[in-house]
Amino acid sequence: MSERVFHWPVRVYWEDTDAGGIVFYANYLKFFERARTEWLRHLGVNQHALRDSTGGMFVVSTSQLNYLRPARLDDMLTVSAELTQISRASMTITQTAQRMDETTGPVTLCVGTIGIAWVNAQTLRPERIPPHVVSVLQDRH
Amino acid sequence: MSERVFHWPVRVYWEDTDAGGIVFYANYLKFFERARTEWLRHLGVNQHALRDSTGGMFVVSTSQLNYLRPARLDDMLTVSAELTQISRASMTITQTAQRMDETTGPVTLCVGTIGIAWVNAQTLRPERIPPHVVSVLQDRH
Amino acid sequence: MSERVFHWPVRVYWEDTDAGGIVFYANYLKFFERARTEWLRHLGVNQHALRDSTGGMFVVSTSQLNYLRPARLDDMLTVSAELTQISRASMTITQTAQRMDETTGPVTLCVGTIGIAWVNAQTLRPERIPPHVVSVLQDRH
Amino acid sequence: MSERVFHWPVRVYWEDTDAGGIVFYANYLKFFERARTEWLRHLGVNQHALRDSTGGMFVVSTSQLNYLRPARLDDMLTVSAELTQISRASMTITQTAQRMDETTGPVTLCVGTIGIAWVNAQTLRPERIPPHVVSVLQDRH
Repeated sequence: MSERVFHWPVRVYWEDTDAGGIVFYANYLKFFERARTEWLRHLGVNQHALRDSTGGMFVVSTSQLNYLRPARLDDMLTVSAELTQISRASMTITQTAQRMDETTGPVTLCVGTIGIAWVNAQTLRPERIPPHVVSVLQDRH
Repeated sequence: MSERVFHWPVRVYWEDTDAGGIVFYANYLKFFERARTEWLRHLGVNQHALRDSTGGMFVVSTSQLNYLRPARLDDMLTVSAELTQISRASMTITQTAQRMDETTGPVTLCVGTIGIAWVNAQTLRPERIPPHVVSVLQDRH
Repeated sequence: MSERVFHWPVRVYWEDTDAGGIVFYANYLKFFERARTEWLRHLGVNQHALRDSTGGMFVVSTSQLNYLRPARLDDMLTVSAELTQISRASMTITQTAQRMDETTGPVTLCVGTIGIAWVNAQTLRPERIPPHVVSVLQDRH
Repeated sequence: MSERVFHWPVRVYWEDTDAGGIVFYANYLKFFERARTEWLRHLGVNQHALRDSTGGMFVVSTSQLNYLRPARLDDMLTVSAELTQISRASMTITQTAQRMDETTGPVTLCVGTIGIAWVNAQTLRPERIPPHVVSVLQDRH
C-alpha cells in the first residue's frame, strides 16, 4: 500500500442505515467527504481557515460511485482517499470504503471517484486553487 | 380542527428510515421544520428574504419530542404546527406528526414542542424578532 | 417534454443545506430517490408492498452525478426521472434537478445517472426483477 | 469528572452544518447517539448482536435538547453520556456536547436528556430490558 493513499476509520451508526438494514447509499458520500477532509487536515490544509484567508473553498463538482457490497450497523470501515489528478482549478480523488473481514481480509464495499473544484465562496464561480495549496497537494501526488 | 393549526403533508422515503425498519427519530425534527417553514411561508414570512433584509434569522433554541408510535417507509404523514407562545425575542411551536389510519382515524406518532429564538445571523446573538413579523404571527395566535 | 419523463417538485429546507450556503451535494441523491419513488408509485409500483409480497427490493448499484449550479434555501426545484435502460435484473434512470428562473426559464443544477438492481431483501444478492414489474416499466419505456 | 461519565470525540464535517454556517440542530441527536452507542460498546453491549440474540432493541422514546451555543465546521467536540436513571423497561441518559476553547476551557454547546425504551424488534412493543444488560448498566450507575 502506497503512502500516497490516506486512510480514515468510519464506524456505522443508526443514523447511517436505512430500512433495508444496510448503509443508505447516499451516506458513502459523507464517509468519503470525512476521509478527504482528514486527508487535507493531515497535509495542513484547514478548509475553514482557508475560506477565511482566501475567500474560496473546495466544492464537489462530480461524483461517481459503485456500490458493491452492503455495510451494516456497527461495522467498522476503512475509507481511503488518493489524489489521482490535479490541475490549477480542479482535482480528482479516488476513494474506497472497505470492511476488514476476519477470515477473508479486506472487502471493498464502495468505490468512488470525486471531482473537486475551487470556487469563490461568495459567487460560487470557479477560480484557481491557491498556489500554496496546489504545491502541498502536488508534493503528495 | 382550529384554523390556528397549520398542517403539512410529509411522505416517508428511504432516506428517513433506519435499520430498525422505521423512521429514524432525529428525522421528526426535519419533518417539524418543514411544517414550520411552510407555515411561515403561508403567513408571508420568507426566511431567506428576511435574512437578507434584516440580517437576522430564526434558530431553534429548545426541542422536546415524545416518540409514541413508529412510522414506516411509504407512510403518508400529516405534520401540524401551532404557535402556542410568542414574546419579543422568542416563540414556542407545538407540533405533531400523525398517520391517517383507514380504520381507526388519525394516529399520533410524535409530539414536539419547539422553542424558537431570533438571532443576528452574523453574531448568532439573540435579538428582538422584527416587529412586523411579530405582528403577522400574533394575528394568527 | 415527453410523457416518458416523470417530474416531482422538491422544496429546499434548512436540512438540505450546508455551511457553504447551498444544498449539500449528497442530498441530490435524496431528491433523485424521492422522484424515482414517486414515479414508481405513479406506475402502481409500491416498494414497501413489493418487498412484503416478493421478498425482494430495488437497490442503487451505481450513481453518477454532475453538480452544475448550486441550489439555495427556499428554492423550489423540479426533479425528473426517466427510465433509459431496463433488463431482467437492472435498470438505469436518468435524472435532473432544475430550478425555474423567472427570467431565463429552467436552470439545470444537477444531472444524474442512477443504476438500479433488484436483490433478495434478506441475502441482498441480485435476482431477476419480478416480471410484472418489468412489464409495467417497459410499457413506459 | 466522575468515571460514570463516558466521553466520545466528534468532529464537525460539512454534512453536519446548514446554511446558517453552524451545526444543524437535529444533528446533535446523531452526535448523542454515537456517544451512547460507544458507551454501550465500552460496557460490552453490542446492539447489533443483542438484536440477533434477544430479538429486541433499544429505541429512543423521548428527547429534550437545549441548544446553547453554535458549533461550526471543523470544530472538535466532546460528547458525554451518563446513565441517570434505569428501570426494568427504560433508562434515561443525560448528555452534553462541549467544545474545548483554548482560552476559556470547555464551552457547553448543547445539553440533552434522552429517554430510552426496550422493544421487541418485530412488533416494536415495549418489553423488559434483558436482565444481563440491566446488570451491566446498573454496575456503572
